[in-house]
This record gives sequence, C-alpha cells and structure tokens, in this order.
Amino acid sequence: MPTQLENAMDTLIKIFHHYSGKEGDKYKLNKGELKQLLTSELTDFLSCQKDPQLVDKIMKDMDINKDNEVDFNEFVILVAALTVACNDFLEEQLKKGNW
Amino acid sequence: MPTQLENAMDTLIKIFHHYSGKEGDKYKLNKGELKQLLTSELTDFLSCQKDPQLVDKIMKDMDINKDNEVDFNEFVILVAALTVACNDFLEEQLKKGNW
Repeated sequence: MPTQLENAMDTLIKIFHHYSGKEGDKYKLNKGELKQLLTSELTDFLSCQKDPQLVDKIMKDMDINKDNEVDFNEFVILVAALTVACNDFLEEQLKKGNW
Repeated sequence: MPTQLENAMDTLIKIFHHYSGKEGDKYKLNKGELKQLLTSELTDFLSCQKDPQLVDKIMKDMDINKDNEVDFNEFVILVAALTVACNDFLEEQLKKGNW
C-alpha cells in the first residue's frame, strides 16, 4: 500500500497529466491548460491574487526552456517553490509562537 | 475545501515536520530522522535498492549547505527529483504504448 508521501507524489503526476492531456502535446501544458490547472487546483492561492496578468507571469516564469509550454519538470519546480513558501510562513509563525 | 494539489503540498509539509520534530533542531532532519522518513515513507523506493550506504549518500546529496542536516528546501528538492524520475518513466512507458 502506498505511503502518504508516495500518494502525494502520485497526485502531482496525475494532476499534471489530467490537464496536459486535454489538447496539443499530451505531455505539456499550454497556456489554456495551465490556467485551468491553476484556477481549479490552486484556488485559495489564486483567490488572494488581484493581478489579472498572473497566469501570463507564472507561465513566463515556469517556461524555463521558452517553448510556450510547461513540461512536468517545470510544473514540479512551481509546486516545490510554492510549498517552500508555505512552509517558510508556517515555520515563521511557529517560531513566533503564533500557533 | 482544499484541492488535491493543495492536500499534496500540505502532506509534504506535515511529513517533513513529523520526522524533523523528533530530536535536535525541530525544523531540520538529522541523519537518524532522515533515515526514519525514507524507510517509512519511501518504502517501495528503498526496497528496490540494495546499497547499504544509500541513506548516507542521499544525506550527502541533499545536504546542499553541508551542515549535516536536511532542511525543508533540501527535502523538497529530493521529492521533486524523485517525482520527475517517476514521471519520466511513466511517460516513456506511455509513449511506447506499454500502458
């Protein structure tokens, strides 16, 4: 039976392919697919953001090899960066004794 | 309600702190804590490995800032690298038509 960590890794792979498989290259997210993934799967994160250009900016930042598509490696880097930001915030609050 | 992706990110944070909080610096994994995390949470991955030095090697590779401990950023890099390796294998099999 998979562990929680193995399940989390599996979830990242499944979510990526759920959106990347919708159109065009099955193994890459185009801008429309990325927007759908971000708005459906990072709802709380995006709801705090007021910048209408946010998806364009994220696309530009994530698309390291500049092919206007996001592959799995590029996607995992975004998820890792967001998770580190959440953890930094949590550790800061714990150190301040807020939680 | 959190999405699947948000739950996966939350799982990574919770697992890390579950092990890092056991002894010493609460926000870092020492070698014993890392070993416990790897053997309990990456069971399938480790069960295929025959190298008795594996945990030492992983510790050395993950410990980018060379303080003999693994912080959350270093842990996320390992998880990201393993997830990318799993995804590469999956995509290769899908392209070959094996699945």
